[in-house]
Amino acid sequence: METLECVFCDKKYPMDVFSPFCPDCHEPLLVSETQKKRIFHTDKKLAVQIFQDFLPLPKIDPRLSLGEGDTPLLKLDRLMSKYGFPRVLAKNETVNPTASFKDRGTVLAVQKAVSLGINKIGTISTGNMAGSTAAYAAQAGLRSLIFVKEDTTKEKILASGIYGPAVIKVKGDYGRLFRKSFEIGRNHGIYFMNSVDPFRIEGYKTTGYEIFLQLNARAPEYVFVPVSAGGHLIGLLRAFLDLKEEGLIQKMPVFVGVQAKGCSPLASAFAHGKPTFTKFLHPQTIAHAISNPNPPGGNIALKMIRENDGMLIRVSDPEILKAQKLLAEDEGIFCDPASATVLAGLFRLSKKLKFKKLDQVVLIITGSGLKTIEDMDLSKIDYHETSFESLEKKLRFVLI
Amino acid sequence: METLECVFCDKKYPMDVFSPFCPDCHEPLLVSETQKKRIFHTDKKLAVQIFQDFLPLPKIDPRLSLGEGDTPLLKLDRLMSKYGFPRVLAKNETVNPTASFKDRGTVLAVQKAVSLGINKIGTISTGNMAGSTAAYAAQAGLRSLIFVKEDTTKEKILASGIYGPAVIKVKGDYGRLFRKSFEIGRNHGIYFMNSVDPFRIEGYKTTGYEIFLQLNARAPEYVFVPVSAGGHLIGLLRAFLDLKEEGLIQKMPVFVGVQAKGCSPLASAFAHGKPTFTKFLHPQTIAHAISNPNPPGGNIALKMIRENDGMLIRVSDPEILKAQKLLAEDEGIFCDPASATVLAGLFRLSKKLKFKKLDQVVLIITGSGLKTIEDMDLSKIDYHETSFESLEKKLRFVLI
Repeated sequence: METLECVFCDKKYPMDVFSPFCPDCHEPLLVSETQKKRIFHTDKKLAVQIFQDFLPLPKIDPRLSLGEGDTPLLKLDRLMSKYGFPRVLAKNETVNPTASFKDRGTVLAVQKAVSLGINKIGTISTGNMAGSTAAYAAQAGLRSLIFVKEDTTKEKILASGIYGPAVIKVKGDYGRLFRKSFEIGRNHGIYFMNSVDPFRIEGYKTTGYEIFLQLNARAPEYVFVPVSAGGHLIGLLRAFLDLKEEGLIQKMPVFVGVQAKGCSPLASAFAHGKPTFTKFLHPQTIAHAISNPNPPGGNIALKMIRENDGMLIRVSDPEILKAQKLLAEDEGIFCDPASATVLAGLFRLSKKLKFKKLDQVVLIITGSGLKTIEDMDLSKIDYHETSFESLEKKLRFVLI
Repeated sequence: METLECVFCDKKYPMDVFSPFCPDCHEPLLVSETQKKRIFHTDKKLAVQIFQDFLPLPKIDPRLSLGEGDTPLLKLDRLMSKYGFPRVLAKNETVNPTASFKDRGTVLAVQKAVSLGINKIGTISTGNMAGSTAAYAAQAGLRSLIFVKEDTTKEKILASGIYGPAVIKVKGDYGRLFRKSFEIGRNHGIYFMNSVDPFRIEGYKTTGYEIFLQLNARAPEYVFVPVSAGGHLIGLLRAFLDLKEEGLIQKMPVFVGVQAKGCSPLASAFAHGKPTFTKFLHPQTIAHAISNPNPPGGNIALKMIRENDGMLIRVSDPEILKAQKLLAEDEGIFCDPASATVLAGLFRLSKKLKFKKLDQVVLIITGSGLKTIEDMDLSKIDYHETSFESLEKKLRFVLI
């Protein structure tokens, strides 16, 4: 029987995508692991096919894929030599079909929806997850429903609305809406594949396996990842736990979850040695994609980070914006502020921690800067205006 | 000796990246073909490495790549069954590192620049080429210079400006600026890798080889591609000519170059059976990325289309916007209006042409819709607002 499990109560429950929370402690349920002796099907093209043994679906329908995964792992040579970093690599998730890591989770949850005969799916999101869910729903011929927060910009609504979902902007508390969505889902037969959906989290594991293969079958020493609801971090950790269980790696990477100072409930709890977090009051950060004051997967993330000798840290908005600019100017990677937290985190940690020269550090770049253009400032750009006639003169000034 | 050739005068000239135009007829020069018995190095990871035998560089430096290429070829099942199309596939170039096909050309031109010891590169662009050139320059540690047109939006300036180039908005005629850029390039040692740069065009060939491999070593019957300056079309045609020369395919695909009605100098020339185009007066179209009234590669494109039994057609802005919406709503692909011309073109042609049921039609999707959000309209989206309390009521209305 397919089951979900609570990592706190250590109990298993029958699979129910409409109620993926523990009836006792109310924490999110995760997919129970079953199969062992898993292998990589490297002759296949799609990530969900290559890593199918590690995923909780007996069958994969390739027609439900938009070609997600297989993203570049780029060595950041210029930043390494400029700042004396160890070997730093960026896993560039911005080149996924809807320009964020969310696609890896959505494709798996949509496979599950279709296999269950569900024809309506939904999500609550401020941006990336909305676009991803709506796109995969469109291709699968499912109706989709997107709830967005009150302060969601017109640009973000358009970027997901184009795929044809019903987009509903809901005034009121986001956390309350998150819980309400599951009630609505059960009543109306809508599978809400939110941030900590168990299948979404399983889909995120594919990033971990890819990193392992791209590093020629070894684990990096460090993995930096932005942390919002916690689902992405949980998925990545589970990937390397799988690899360890299979005997493919001996040692887990040190996971560094990075939050924005202006919304850092998990980093705060970690800093104070608390096993559970408390809701963050008055969140305020440029990193909108990870501004979640009440992260549903937060307590699992804290538990897994603790058990695996990881850490949760926080970085300020000025550090984030500086890192965003550096990634673009030195490495040609244009990411959103949420993604840039990982480079900012590396700067922070490199002051405290002694990296070894041969350490491999992977920064997960989660989303494209093209989605947050409206937050950018023309005054930070080397920008000039001139007439055709004055161009040569202007140029002498610019090229100095 | 490395040479460039004029396909009109049938003459060869020594390689000069600063002056890639025929001294006699002033048409753009293309890279002369040399090597034969070329093979695919499918054990390699990067497109420029896999297809190196077909590219005019004796050495490839993988550090100058951002992971471009290897893009999905997606079967458009839902559109096929809805509209009785033959087998239609979308080559999704929006998942390149800077979200457009330009990256395939830029990576090759930047390799050439570095191999020549050039440390300044430039381009003239309204968007995609600017971002691509600036990103690859950043990663390679080259200084870059971007000239943009007077009506370029703030969003587009930011999307390329983030990589740290000098961006100069120049008031005045775009065609004149194009010619001027090469003069400036020679005077200041700046390699202007513009739309019809011979190395850029060679880089676009990789898309053609990938399609051939993705279709299990055969050519599609049709290739639809948006046409602006002509460089992309020329590159794609050259790819399949290479494959034919190598005996890998017997028959060329029918190439269908698509322009926007509001700026269609080449489609007009083709319709009137003219061997050369005349400048298009008063261009006006939503498809900004292909709004080039005086395309520098236009006459070569016309010649190659004629010689290979292709065609050049045009589609209206309403047809473009309808196609953009359909690609998103039915297939989960969010492209810019310029890219959507190919689906609009397929609709047009399917009324005139009898496609065979087994015909394979490839639509090249050139750029991401995320870059043209500012041109979109919220009224076209299924969008609602409500309070938390009225959500259930609203939902009954929305879900009908």
